[in-house]
Amino acid sequence: MKVQVNEGVLTYMEADAVPEAQGSTNPTGPDGPQSRNSVVICQAVGQSIFTSSVSSAAGRVGFLLQKEEGKEASCPVLFIQLNELFSTPDGLQWKQTARWIKFEEKVEDGGERWSKPHITALSLHSLFELRTCIKKGMVLLDLDAHSLKQIVEKVTATQIDAHALRPEVRKKLTSVLLCTPQHHTTKSQLRIVAELGAACCRDKAHNRSDPGAEISEAPLKEQLKNQFQKKIPAEAEVSNILVGEVDFLEKPFIAFIRLQEAVKLGALTEVAFPSRFLFILLGPRAKVKAYHEIGRAVATVLTDELFQRVACQAQDREDLVAGIDEFLDELTVLPPGKWDPTIRIPPPKCLPSPHKRISRHLREWKSHCKGNMSAADDRYTHGHQPVSEELQRTGRLFGGLVNDIRRKAPWYWSDFYDALNVQCFSAILYIYLATVTNAITFGGMLGDATDNMQGVLESFLGTAVAGAVFCLFAGQPLTILSSTGPVLVFERLLFSFSKDYSLDYLEFRLWIGLWVAFFGLILVATEASYLVQYFTRFTEEGFCALISFIFIYDAVKKMLSLAGSFPVNWDYKINDVTLYGCICNSSGTGNASMLTEMLLPAPGSTGMQQGLEAANWSLLTRTECSRVGGHLVGNSCNYIPDITFMAFILFLGTFLCSMTLKSFKTSRYFPTALRKLVSDFSIILAILIFCGIDAILGLETPKLIVPSEFKPTNSQRGWVVFPLGVNPWWVCLVSTVPAVLVIILIFMDQQITAVILNRKEYRLQKGAGFHLDLFCVSLLMILTSVTGLPWYVSATVISLAHMDSLKKESTTSAPGEQPKFLGIREQRLTGLVVFILTGVSVFLAPVLKYIPMPVLYGVFLYMGVAALNSIQFMDRIQLLLMPTKHQPDFMYLRHVPLRRVHLFTLIQMLCLAALWILKSTVAAIIFPVMLLALVGIRKAMECIFSRQDLSWLDDIMPEDDRKEEEEKLQRSQEKEESDSEDSEFTYQEKGPEINISVN
Amino acid sequence: MKVQVNEGVLTYMEADAVPEAQGSTNPTGPDGPQSRNSVVICQAVGQSIFTSSVSSAAGRVGFLLQKEEGKEASCPVLFIQLNELFSTPDGLQWKQTARWIKFEEKVEDGGERWSKPHITALSLHSLFELRTCIKKGMVLLDLDAHSLKQIVEKVTATQIDAHALRPEVRKKLTSVLLCTPQHHTTKSQLRIVAELGAACCRDKAHNRSDPGAEISEAPLKEQLKNQFQKKIPAEAEVSNILVGEVDFLEKPFIAFIRLQEAVKLGALTEVAFPSRFLFILLGPRAKVKAYHEIGRAVATVLTDELFQRVACQAQDREDLVAGIDEFLDELTVLPPGKWDPTIRIPPPKCLPSPHKRISRHLREWKSHCKGNMSAADDRYTHGHQPVSEELQRTGRLFGGLVNDIRRKAPWYWSDFYDALNVQCFSAILYIYLATVTNAITFGGMLGDATDNMQGVLESFLGTAVAGAVFCLFAGQPLTILSSTGPVLVFERLLFSFSKDYSLDYLEFRLWIGLWVAFFGLILVATEASYLVQYFTRFTEEGFCALISFIFIYDAVKKMLSLAGSFPVNWDYKINDVTLYGCICNSSGTGNASMLTEMLLPAPGSTGMQQGLEAANWSLLTRTECSRVGGHLVGNSCNYIPDITFMAFILFLGTFLCSMTLKSFKTSRYFPTALRKLVSDFSIILAILIFCGIDAILGLETPKLIVPSEFKPTNSQRGWVVFPLGVNPWWVCLVSTVPAVLVIILIFMDQQITAVILNRKEYRLQKGAGFHLDLFCVSLLMILTSVTGLPWYVSATVISLAHMDSLKKESTTSAPGEQPKFLGIREQRLTGLVVFILTGVSVFLAPVLKYIPMPVLYGVFLYMGVAALNSIQFMDRIQLLLMPTKHQPDFMYLRHVPLRRVHLFTLIQMLCLAALWILKSTVAAIIFPVMLLALVGIRKAMECIFSRQDLSWLDDIMPEDDRKEEEEKLQRSQEKEESDSEDSEFTYQEKGPEINISVN
Repeated sequence: MKVQVNEGVLTYMEADAVPEAQGSTNPTGPDGPQSRNSVVICQAVGQSIFTSSVSSAAGRVGFLLQKEEGKEASCPVLFIQLNELFSTPDGLQWKQTARWIKFEEKVEDGGERWSKPHITALSLHSLFELRTCIKKGMVLLDLDAHSLKQIVEKVTATQIDAHALRPEVRKKLTSVLLCTPQHHTTKSQLRIVAELGAACCRDKAHNRSDPGAEISEAPLKEQLKNQFQKKIPAEAEVSNILVGEVDFLEKPFIAFIRLQEAVKLGALTEVAFPSRFLFILLGPRAKVKAYHEIGRAVATVLTDELFQRVACQAQDREDLVAGIDEFLDELTVLPPGKWDPTIRIPPPKCLPSPHKRISRHLREWKSHCKGNMSAADDRYTHGHQPVSEELQRTGRLFGGLVNDIRRKAPWYWSDFYDALNVQCFSAILYIYLATVTNAITFGGMLGDATDNMQGVLESFLGTAVAGAVFCLFAGQPLTILSSTGPVLVFERLLFSFSKDYSLDYLEFRLWIGLWVAFFGLILVATEASYLVQYFTRFTEEGFCALISFIFIYDAVKKMLSLAGSFPVNWDYKINDVTLYGCICNSSGTGNASMLTEMLLPAPGSTGMQQGLEAANWSLLTRTECSRVGGHLVGNSCNYIPDITFMAFILFLGTFLCSMTLKSFKTSRYFPTALRKLVSDFSIILAILIFCGIDAILGLETPKLIVPSEFKPTNSQRGWVVFPLGVNPWWVCLVSTVPAVLVIILIFMDQQITAVILNRKEYRLQKGAGFHLDLFCVSLLMILTSVTGLPWYVSATVISLAHMDSLKKESTTSAPGEQPKFLGIREQRLTGLVVFILTGVSVFLAPVLKYIPMPVLYGVFLYMGVAALNSIQFMDRIQLLLMPTKHQPDFMYLRHVPLRRVHLFTLIQMLCLAALWILKSTVAAIIFPVMLLALVGIRKAMECIFSRQDLSWLDDIMPEDDRKEEEEKLQRSQEKEESDSEDSEFTYQEKGPEINISVN
Repeated sequence: MKVQVNEGVLTYMEADAVPEAQGSTNPTGPDGPQSRNSVVICQAVGQSIFTSSVSSAAGRVGFLLQKEEGKEASCPVLFIQLNELFSTPDGLQWKQTARWIKFEEKVEDGGERWSKPHITALSLHSLFELRTCIKKGMVLLDLDAHSLKQIVEKVTATQIDAHALRPEVRKKLTSVLLCTPQHHTTKSQLRIVAELGAACCRDKAHNRSDPGAEISEAPLKEQLKNQFQKKIPAEAEVSNILVGEVDFLEKPFIAFIRLQEAVKLGALTEVAFPSRFLFILLGPRAKVKAYHEIGRAVATVLTDELFQRVACQAQDREDLVAGIDEFLDELTVLPPGKWDPTIRIPPPKCLPSPHKRISRHLREWKSHCKGNMSAADDRYTHGHQPVSEELQRTGRLFGGLVNDIRRKAPWYWSDFYDALNVQCFSAILYIYLATVTNAITFGGMLGDATDNMQGVLESFLGTAVAGAVFCLFAGQPLTILSSTGPVLVFERLLFSFSKDYSLDYLEFRLWIGLWVAFFGLILVATEASYLVQYFTRFTEEGFCALISFIFIYDAVKKMLSLAGSFPVNWDYKINDVTLYGCICNSSGTGNASMLTEMLLPAPGSTGMQQGLEAANWSLLTRTECSRVGGHLVGNSCNYIPDITFMAFILFLGTFLCSMTLKSFKTSRYFPTALRKLVSDFSIILAILIFCGIDAILGLETPKLIVPSEFKPTNSQRGWVVFPLGVNPWWVCLVSTVPAVLVIILIFMDQQITAVILNRKEYRLQKGAGFHLDLFCVSLLMILTSVTGLPWYVSATVISLAHMDSLKKESTTSAPGEQPKFLGIREQRLTGLVVFILTGVSVFLAPVLKYIPMPVLYGVFLYMGVAALNSIQFMDRIQLLLMPTKHQPDFMYLRHVPLRRVHLFTLIQMLCLAALWILKSTVAAIIFPVMLLALVGIRKAMECIFSRQDLSWLDDIMPEDDRKEEEEKLQRSQEKEESDSEDSEFTYQEKGPEINISVN
């Protein structure tokens, strides 16, 4: 029995369902009509081991999806609201009890609040009930109505026509359905606290509309003001679900309605969006829980992307039922007794993509139509990823460089206006302080190593110039240049060599620099950067861990040396206070005339010089004393009270405070915006807090000292180094030998950092520029060699910190969805400003002198620890300390035997230890070669580890083509065998264990 | 077609299933036999809104359960092992791929390790497949076989008889089924690391038995050595599931076997337990994933307690199918697309009890038989809990006391031997240090307040005597007695009053003490302790928070006063080191003769006294200087370097270290036993570490000083106070007035603490003794008054710390099960030893003097913070700072509107502030009365808050009977209405937010 009504396709109650729906007993027994219903269920559950054809439900769904495939506009986002009927003392009233966008939010029974978004856990029962509802109830597809009143009229009319509803009930039913529902709107915490005072007595009276009032057509003020509106995309549509029990019905009144056009139904929903789907279930008393559960089931089915498409395309009732059957087929079920169904499951971090599901359905259907099952060819291929476009060889001279420029040029202007964000301001402050501290540290050490031929001022100037130039022209402007340890060691050796052989250090260095630049340009021309593909995670992490350890070690060493400069008198006895003292003693070569000179300016002191002298010796301060040639005598001269302790408090305080503030983002307190702000500015805040504490307490802690005059540190040198002059002519040829060493060093240091910064996980949009970067570094070698400034390459830790401070995250859309990492704010401005500020710092001395050094060392410690936290290597070291059963569920642990993971870790630790020892000795100069050895060791490990293991623990190195083909074949075979493994790949990316940031 | 075989009931393939199983096409079309199968599914899904009778499946299950009800021995624990057939180069081989006790543990595909225990998430599909398997496959119930060989023989014979198996396949099938399976045994982390060296090359050779070898009958060595055996109860049985694909079968070979008697099947399972159930599924190629999923489905169904009973009792195939249908009916389902089915869900903390589920089934079935549905009467009643037995009034004089003694007496000896555990040792050390510190602190303050009439020594002695007596005889021996703040204030006032009116303080105090004891005994006699029922959580938490804040405040105050005693010279200039000094100056009333005396012992110094004098003044130390009457002159005299900073480092270090070590228990590192040990001894370890640091650095930090001589602090008093002597006679009558104040104070202080310690959450087995406790305290009042020692009542924070250090937790049984809090190690020994040690401490001075005071203050801070963490009030304060959406999912937030929660919190904060102000002023003496006012305020809050709200945020106060009856009625009605709420109660206890411990 089909009733064709003018509004569209109306499929009403199939013959077999009518008797049941009318409450009569089933005339045909258990094998009769009910079984038709159930056959489909069994067919629905996909391919059985007992039959092998595609079920009819899958067929229907595939057909519907295929129809839609060509169309551009798919189903819009659905906002689903569940309204339930409650009987209050004033009569029946609709109340919103739950809502869905992707996940369920429930109005808490007594809490008058929204629950946290959670996965809707249903009972299988309610889904079967829903299926029966769709089977037996009214299904009106493409109904032409423009208001709720019209809809209700048409629905009841159809029901009466079909003798499913007694006409005398119609009026009651209409009035119930047209009651204004009460929505639960979201309030801010502040408003709740503000309302507290007034809330005590008028508890019952809050924004509740008069029950029984007819629904208004226009959207309510409350709807328009609703904060929740912001979470819903503008083109969204609403689905309304109305369930409840009334006393005038003897059997359930069920209607599933799809409107021809989405229509705004006034005050029916919390927010004013047009409605497309309605589901109405009213029934007799005593089943309210069941109605509620069916309501939730409809909502859940409607949140399903696949069912949404089916519902949009459905031609008749059977299509909808097929949609539900497909939904049932894909359900995950949890056993009773082992799971508490009242637990609300929070939304998972990542979800299977609906497109994959839909395309799988389509594929199955199509292959079924074609009669063959083609192997799924869009599987996630795990393991060796194809070489990125940046690293493909062109085969032409400078081809890579040209490509780099071509790739980066279109982004150039966006590199400046993309920086217009407050986050960049924080990044500038943070990186500026790190850079300045670094410049001072390395400047000091260079000055020490080269007899001040390169000192702090040169370090500042060089950093500023080289950094700014690099940021303006490089391929990866997020890189921060800095002096590095290996370069420092090289300079030290070079200087002592020059001294021993009476060569002019700067001139010798100029030649080396020029050769290095030349070699660099050759490497650029020959596209040597494509070799970085051999830098796998093994090499990267070894390098990164080493640099991080150096940061941590240096910070601690600096603090200890600081404790050495401010020695504490550990044997101080409080009782012996009278026995401590320190006086300036003139005995020995005391320069009395100088003392006289000093005292001369004192008025009226000409005649009594002799008498005063003795007394005045004791009035001299430490510096004055040493100036007049006296020496300090006493048991307290060597000790400085309190400073060391204060320094350690500042050091650890800054470190812990940075850590705490950084993690504040994930705490529960305060609004998200505030937390994000605090987290972004965490290091600046920590620095400010501890500078403040230091300033208030007023102890003489060591402070940051920046040069305040602009002139070479060593007066024997100028700002330009001339190539020929003091040294013999053959020096310029001999220079090639050290230059080879230096170019290896520069290349490795530069490119490993570049590889780390350009990792896939950071989702950089504007691409890398390995060749261009090396080109810039080579040119800067010429500049810095000619002007006698330090040499610069990319600094891993600071660059990572730079990127981390520029992370972009999505603001969540649907409640319960995780904010997504969107990428890095790629631009040139932050780096540029940092280096300009570094240059200007020479004039900022009056402000910077308030920053205590221990605070800056604390920041260094933080940077080292933060960089360590980001690498898988550290996770694996932690595994060594964990009993197997407590180990986290890393993907690689599922696939690689634990002893192999441990073996890999131990090899890496040995390599690191070897590197560390190298770095600490004079052999540091061959350090870059040792980095190359790392690549070799990694290559050798292919003999010990299977490719499968390595692909999980590391990346796969490129190999010659033949071998690769073989591998591919073998791998795909493996894949075929272990289907279960494959299903894991489908949804989870290889590296959930790879941290995106340095935090 | 039924085949009755002599072994028992063998129901073989129903007529309608045979054609399908034999691979022929289904002759009756979609409405035919397959639909029979499905009708049951629809019936299975419980009560539909369309029909109202109990389904046939529920009926069957109910009948089976009822049969079993009388029997004592229900089903034993089942260990379920899934073996799968893999084809290796050497042929087919069985491998264990998963196991279950309660939760699933999977052998990771490549990881060669057990996964974490997780909930088995199935697809609905696989359960339907399983249902079909049971419907169509062979079901052999009560098979009489004693080895795997016999089983396989009988199964294949039956199949061949039924023409379901070609005879020529039999031999192949038998040999496959009898292959020795390979188990995955659990290895320790150490063994894995140890194996590393040897593991590189012989990767493939580890304990793998020869594939194809026939299964051995005797248990293997590897089985007996298996560590996992310990996790399984001794009476457990095994279920074996064997699935796989072979190439000689054209259609699936399915058998579900229940043995008549459980039989050990040799090497079939990982552990050597007898097997009862076997499920075999072998089928043609290309469905391996489906077979795996069906295997998991069988295992999951078998882990279900309800199905286990059904399977044990089943008479035929239909019973099993009914069991599966009931299982299906109770499934929780998660929608596809919103949940990633590969996520492994960890087992929840608490689970629905299987008994409840089973009894619900039974009840439904019985009520169905009787024809009426009785309302569920065993619902969890939420709200006012019945008055506990300890607090019921007997109406007789001393009735409560007698009951207390009667209740506690049987436990008396166990109170000593229950203490034989290493945990008690840790508790003793921890509480001892806390008690000693407390005794010193209060002793010092009392001495200060009473002019040393009660000093540190009296404090030690009193604590030791009173505490030990209380621990020996009290009702709740976990209580730790201590002086408390209010008592201190009272003593201070009493002393100054006595001084003003020239009364003898100790004698006056004796009379007050005697009166207090008298009143106390009256309170005991009249069973006044029953009033503690009015101390609801509101009062308890207010009091507990106050005491905790006082702990924190005192710790910080002490540290600041310490900084005051060791002043830092904030203006110290390093350069001016020569200008600082401090010398002893004889000017003024310098006592030259004393100096002379001091110098006399020096040899040969008689003649040169005069000359030496000047020089010697400068050699005097601070104490010598003040002894000879000199005074210190100089700008460094008032400063002490480094000590303050060191003290703060020790203070914060101890606090943070305790916190960190305590939380170490939940970290992932190191084996559980070690972590537990560290956590139990966390405070002792922290104290030792920082004492060590202090000792190594050797600075003169303030140390713990214990009295070393046994005599009254003030020499004017003796050890006994006589009642009549100095004071006029009327003093003994006037004493009643302060005595009333003191008894209120004592009663409140004592009983609130007692209520807190005896809370339901701590699951004390030996019961409370409110009356007995008060009785002991009263008697101790007499003792301490007569001997002039301080008065003692229960100390909340230390007692909570005591209980916390004695927590018992279950060692988990099934993998994935949470350790359960089992209660407290209730005994008298720890307290007793603590107080004996406190007494002995007078002689421990040489050891204790190494403990720096800042370390002890750190422990105080820790105790305060730990006690604060345990109360709901703090959670609610934190809620004030959280945006609504980030708030945790506390049960009360689901049921009470947020603004009411905030209002409740604010009222509580105001009360606390008022109490704090009171405590800080002289009005502190009426502090106990204010505690009573708290009860009044709580009572008044019933006007503002609904009973429903209060029952969630607080407990319900007792009321007169009539009102209560009304409430009960109303409440039960509310319950009826909101069924969904009820379902939450069923499984979750009211207070998942109540912390069991002070941590």
